[in-house]
Parts: sequence; structure tokens; C-alpha cells
Amino acid sequence: MNAILQLDAVEQRNRLASGALRAVEVAEAYLAEIERREPEVGAWAWLDGDYVMAQAKALDDYRSRGRAIGALHGLPVGLKDIIDTAGVPTENGTVLDAGRKPTADAFVVKRLRQAGAVIMGKTVTAELALRRPGKTRNPHNPAHTPGGSSSGSAAAVAAGMVPLALGTQTMGSVIRPASYCGVVGYKPTFGAIPRSGVLAQSATLDTLGVFAGSVGAAALLADSLFGHDSADPATALMPAPRLAEIAGAAPPVAPHFAFVASPAWAVAEPAMREGFAELHEALGGHCDEVELPGAFTEAAKLCEIVQLAELAKSYHHYEKRGRDALSPEMQAAIDDGSRILARDYLAARDWQALLNDGLEAIFSRFDAIITPAAPGPAPEGLGSTGSPAFNGLWTFCGTPAITLPLLQADSGLPMGVQLVGRRGDDGRLLRSARWLVQFLSQTD
Amino acid sequence: MNAILQLDAVEQRNRLASGALRAVEVAEAYLAEIERREPEVGAWAWLDGDYVMAQAKALDDYRSRGRAIGALHGLPVGLKDIIDTAGVPTENGTVLDAGRKPTADAFVVKRLRQAGAVIMGKTVTAELALRRPGKTRNPHNPAHTPGGSSSGSAAAVAAGMVPLALGTQTMGSVIRPASYCGVVGYKPTFGAIPRSGVLAQSATLDTLGVFAGSVGAAALLADSLFGHDSADPATALMPAPRLAEIAGAAPPVAPHFAFVASPAWAVAEPAMREGFAELHEALGGHCDEVELPGAFTEAAKLCEIVQLAELAKSYHHYEKRGRDALSPEMQAAIDDGSRILARDYLAARDWQALLNDGLEAIFSRFDAIITPAAPGPAPEGLGSTGSPAFNGLWTFCGTPAITLPLLQADSGLPMGVQLVGRRGDDGRLLRSARWLVQFLSQTD
Repeated sequence: MNAILQLDAVEQRNRLASGALRAVEVAEAYLAEIERREPEVGAWAWLDGDYVMAQAKALDDYRSRGRAIGALHGLPVGLKDIIDTAGVPTENGTVLDAGRKPTADAFVVKRLRQAGAVIMGKTVTAELALRRPGKTRNPHNPAHTPGGSSSGSAAAVAAGMVPLALGTQTMGSVIRPASYCGVVGYKPTFGAIPRSGVLAQSATLDTLGVFAGSVGAAALLADSLFGHDSADPATALMPAPRLAEIAGAAPPVAPHFAFVASPAWAVAEPAMREGFAELHEALGGHCDEVELPGAFTEAAKLCEIVQLAELAKSYHHYEKRGRDALSPEMQAAIDDGSRILARDYLAARDWQALLNDGLEAIFSRFDAIITPAAPGPAPEGLGSTGSPAFNGLWTFCGTPAITLPLLQADSGLPMGVQLVGRRGDDGRLLRSARWLVQFLSQTD
Repeated sequence: MNAILQLDAVEQRNRLASGALRAVEVAEAYLAEIERREPEVGAWAWLDGDYVMAQAKALDDYRSRGRAIGALHGLPVGLKDIIDTAGVPTENGTVLDAGRKPTADAFVVKRLRQAGAVIMGKTVTAELALRRPGKTRNPHNPAHTPGGSSSGSAAAVAAGMVPLALGTQTMGSVIRPASYCGVVGYKPTFGAIPRSGVLAQSATLDTLGVFAGSVGAAALLADSLFGHDSADPATALMPAPRLAEIAGAAPPVAPHFAFVASPAWAVAEPAMREGFAELHEALGGHCDEVELPGAFTEAAKLCEIVQLAELAKSYHHYEKRGRDALSPEMQAAIDDGSRILARDYLAARDWQALLNDGLEAIFSRFDAIITPAAPGPAPEGLGSTGSPAFNGLWTFCGTPAITLPLLQADSGLPMGVQLVGRRGDDGRLLRSARWLVQFLSQTD
């Protein structure tokens, strides 16, 4: 394997910045790896080697003229195929958008280009970022699902076909596939990354997230994406997040984790339960078990009410354009959402603030919640992308979450450990995550 | 009549500040006027002379010790009886809240006390700030409605029983009663005045507003109320509005008004049409007729969808506590709201931004929109509070609006001229309003 591919994205960036690596070398290495792995994994919805090499060459030329380079100079990034790219297909995982070529880049794509990233291609998404899987297989075992709906982004990073990728989470679509594929998946605080130019499913829940091989690489990528966009009312004016700097620093004191079984624990599989028992033991005094208030029992249901009601509104135009071209799963979701009463939707929305108030008692004492990223390893079969049981609650609350590939089932498949932080305190979450990875590597 | 009552609130405030007037003199003058007018008008839901005089005395004592006084020092203010007052009844116009005494002041009541205002009492509201009228009659003709739902606040100011009052508008509940009663009614930009401690009917539409005898007095009062409150997500951090200062200044150039007939023009009565024809002529080159884009035809319906859906959620607990104690009108509104689908509610919400985009074309060329405040003068009869046909559109858009008592029907009943400004540009709206009043008084 090309030695470039063994480097973490942070190290690649450092060498690209110093001139020890050229952007075309990096791009060529990943394109070769794609040629090798893509037939089995099927992570890409659209890929064009010329498109990639043209960007890499332009970046090398730019650098050779001595100009100041961006924070992601020369780093390839994969984009979930619901993120608009100017002049390049963005088909949202549905035949209703076959051949669709946006005329403008999404906000995040502009940010990536400004930072000097190489847009590697578009990754496979479940149909309209919901349930119906695309063609992607789990890189660790092609008979298993990669998770979804950001299937291609998680699998592409896991298979080493790209060092970084973007996805979105409306229920569990970043954390779950990252857990199944054994990579770092990071869903920032709701509203941190502007969504203009990204397929809108649920205005209240849709969150952009990143996939990477390490916490540091995830922080590096997210740093270029946080910001304010007047076209996305969920965003706010805020100072630069300095995520990479904070994540890279040592915590002032060792973090204290709250193990939260959460209402989803009932569906946790034996492999995940055993993994967490070992994890809890390894952490010792760094972790205490905390119970969520009773109100959280209903949170996943509330999240689904909000998701489906907003989906039914957002995807109404797809239904009108061609209901028959939508999968039975999507038709059912639209029908379910269309029946939800405004009164029930609004009552569910009220719980977002109430549940967050309930979390304050935890975040005032602990640095982060530690909980499974999914019920277990990636299930066998490609007909479903698995269960978001461990994700909806945190998406509903808008809290930042990150999954770390720290556990393994007997089958060899990876399982993610999810850390959840206080809204707006993404830096602390990433710093605690990095501490956890290092702590466990020392105790191994 | 006591000479104090003839003074505008701004002049009263100046004399209270200089010491030429004492707070107890002002309070006594208004209490005497209430004794005279209240039996016919019925503007007050709760009033206690001792409560008023205790505040006035305390303010005089405070001033006599040489301490810095507030911006509203000694000015009496009436409060719509859906605004919480600590230890004093707040019954929301329903027997279901009979005897209800909040333990805390609403945000705006705290602000009033900080500014040195005298809380005069609680004014009659329509049942839960919707349709079913209270006992109040129009001070200009007791056989006519005062409008609603802020009936008591509008009537109390119009009858000279208090110089200033607060109300709320969810559809047309500030502008309409002010128009019917012949006073200035000002509904600021949505989100400008925090609503914590005020009965919540519709989170997206509920707006606090003020009643006064002049534009300057309305600006003086509103200046003390604008602000940020973390408990009301509609509010934002903002600099002090300086409304009184801006409203009091001469415009750099004479304002240019856009006469907008609006979709409600179809229900405008002959008296209002004639009044506007004369007004248009008097304004000459200061006014051009502008047509709203076609999308605005549906705005009132969209506003009602949002209002009733949110009302059904907000008032669900009243329904549970005693549906039979609610009026048939309220039961019907709850039932209508309960049937609205989340998808339709969300689609209506989307139009708020789209319609505001449509208004930009007007506000980029004109200082304010000029349009009727109501279809005509206050209708005869006390069974209804009249039509909000000229109000829902502007409430839906969240634009600031002010009504000025500039027209009169042949019956002698007043009719309001409504000015509407760009969201967030309240200062310019008030300045234009003051210019209009002065301009027309010169041409009379």
C-alpha cells in the first residue's frame, strides 16, 4: 500500500503544507486505492479522476507561486451525494434527481474549496438520506451493511479511499455508519455547520457531520466548516471554533465521563454490553454511571415525530413529481409524516428544550456522556442500514456527538463508543475524545 | 378635567422628572378619571387604588432622596390581563384562571418597575386573547365594540383613564382596538419585546405592543421594553433601540409612503375608502400606490393556520382542565387548530420568509407602507371585536406596525391609518409616523 495512505490526515496536511508532499501525489495515491477497493465497497455515487487531478494540479501550481495556502491544502474530501456541487451531479440517492447538476456549490463546499481541499467525488447516500440503502457494502465484510444514510462517506474513509468525508445526520446517519465501518464520526452541535445547498429533510434535526481516521483529523476538517450563514436560520454568529487547537491540547484535568445506558440499552446486543463492561472497568474512576430522568424514555419517539412531520413537508415535491419512483419505505415515511397533527408536532418540539434542561445536571458534573454508538456491530445483510436507537435522542437534543472505533465484536467487526457533549461545547468534547483514545491505547 | 390629564405622557414624564409634578398627583388624577369613566367603559379587569397610590408614594419618596430616576418615573401604565403581575390577579380573560395570582412579574413588568412606572391595574382582554369579548365598551360610543383582544388597554387610554398601556397582538389585537378607540397603537418587530410571563397563544406570532396618546409617548414606553431574554427564543441580543430619540428627530428627507391596498381592501368600508382617498390626495408626491405580489393573497389564511395550530397546542391544557368553561368560539378555534396537519403548518411557516423577501422590494424604495388599520370604524354591537383583515398579513411577516388616529367616520368614530415598516427598522417607522402626524396637522 502507498505510504501516503498510512498517514493520518493531520500529518498529510503538515507535509502538504511544508512541501514534502504534493497534492497530485496524494490524489494519485487515493485514486489508485479507489481502483483497488471500490468494486467491492461501492462507496462512490460519482467519481471522475480528471476532476480530481485538475484540482490537485491547480493547488500545486497555486502553492508553487508562493501564495498562502488553506488549512486543508491538498487534502481529498468525499461528499455525501446530498451536498450540492456546482456542475457535478448531486442526485440525492433518488432516480427523481437523476442527472441533476446544481449550478452552485453548497456553503460547505465553498468553504472546502477556500481551504484548499480536493473534492474527491460524491459518496453513496441512502434514498433521500433516509432508509432505503444504496449499493455500498461494509469494507470490513461485504456481506454486512455499512450503515446509513451516509453509507458511502463512512465506507470510503474506512476503506482508505479518501482520508476525510462529509455526511449528514437527521436521526443517526453519521454516528451509526461510522460505528459500523470503524472510523471516527463527528456530529457537531446543531446549527454549527451551515446547511445551505444540502438536501433539507428536517430543518430542526438535519446536521452536517464529518468522517475521519482520527479525532484530530475530524477537528481539522470541522474547523473549516463551522460558521454563520444568513440563509440557514439554525446558525449564529460565533467566534472561530479553534476545534483542532482545543482538541490537540491536554485537558487541564483528566476528563470525567458519565456512562449513560439510555433508553436504547434494551436493544444493545451482547457484544456491545460486554465491550462496555470492559470499557467501564478500564476507565475506573474516570467514569460513573448516570441515569437519565424518566422523560427521556419518550425522546426517540419525539424525535421521530419531528423528523417525519418535517420530512413530509420537505419531500412533498418529490411525492408530487413521482411517488411511484420512491421506495415503499420512503412512501411509508411520507404517509406517516403526513398524518402527524401540528399540535403533536409542536408539543414534541417543546421537549427539545426540556430535555436539554435535564442534560444540564449531567454536563455540570461530567465532561461528556459515554454510551454506545449503535446496538452492536454492523448487521448482516444489505437490505437495511441498521438501527438508530442510540442516536435519535442526541440528535433531538442538538448535542454534539462523536463515535470512536474503540471496540470490536468477536466477528472482527468494529463497534463505536459514542461521546456526547454539551451543546456548543464541541471543543471540550473533542478534547475528551482524544484523551480517551490515548488513555485506552496506554492501558491496552 | 384635571389639567394633568391633558398633557401628553412625554410632557408628564418631563414634569415628573423635573419635580414639577409628583407621582401621587398624577396617580390621583387618573384614579379620579377612572371613577368617572369606568362605569360606562369597563376597561379594567382588576384595579386597586391603594396598590396604585403605594407605588406612587414610594416613587416620590425615592425621588426625594435624590436618587437617579427611571425613564418612566411616575407614569401610570395599564396592563392587559394576560401579562403576569406578582401577587396581583392575572386571569387571562377566562374563568379557568379565576383567582390566579402569579408569583412573579412578567419580563416587561420588571422592566416597567425598573423604569419607575406605576402599574395602574389589569385591563380587560378577550377570552385568552382571542375572540370572545370581555365587558369593555368603546369610549366614543358605548354601543360599539372597542375591538380586541386588547380591548381594555385601548379603551382605557382612549378614555383618558391611563396615559399608557400594554397589549398583545397575535393576529390584530393591538392595531385593531387602537384604531377603533382612536389612539396610537404600536406593534414592534416580532421578537423585539420579550414575552416571558405573558400568556402564550402562538409562539410564532405573539407580539407585545403599546397604546399611547402620541407617537412620542409610544416610543418612550417601548424604549423601556425592547431587549433580550434568554427565556424567549424570539428575542436576540441587540443594542438599545433609542426609539424615542429617533422618532423625535426630523427625517433627513421627507418620508416616501407606499400605499398598499392589500388583499383586505375588498372588505374596506366606504368610510375607510373615502378617508384614504383624501389622505392620498393630501400626501401628494409623498405617497405612491404599490401592489403586493400575488403570493400575498393567501397570507391571511396562512397566518390563521399558524395561529390556530399553535393555539391548539398552547391551550390544550385549558381544554383538559375544563372545555365546557371555554366559549363556543374558543372551542371551535381549538378544534380547528387540532385538525391542522403538521405538514400544512410547516408549509405555512415557510411563507413567512418568502413574503418578507417580497416586501424587500417595497422597503428598499419606501420608508413605510400606508394602509388601513381596520376595514372601517368600530362596528356596532358588543358580540364581536371586529375583523383583523388588515392585520394578519403584517403580524405574519413580523413587520413593525403602528396605527395613527388620523381619520374619522361621519358617525364621529375614529379610524386608524396603519403604517408598516421593515423588520428591525422600528425607529424609522416611528419617525415616519411622527412626520405624517405633523404634516397632516399642517395641511388641515
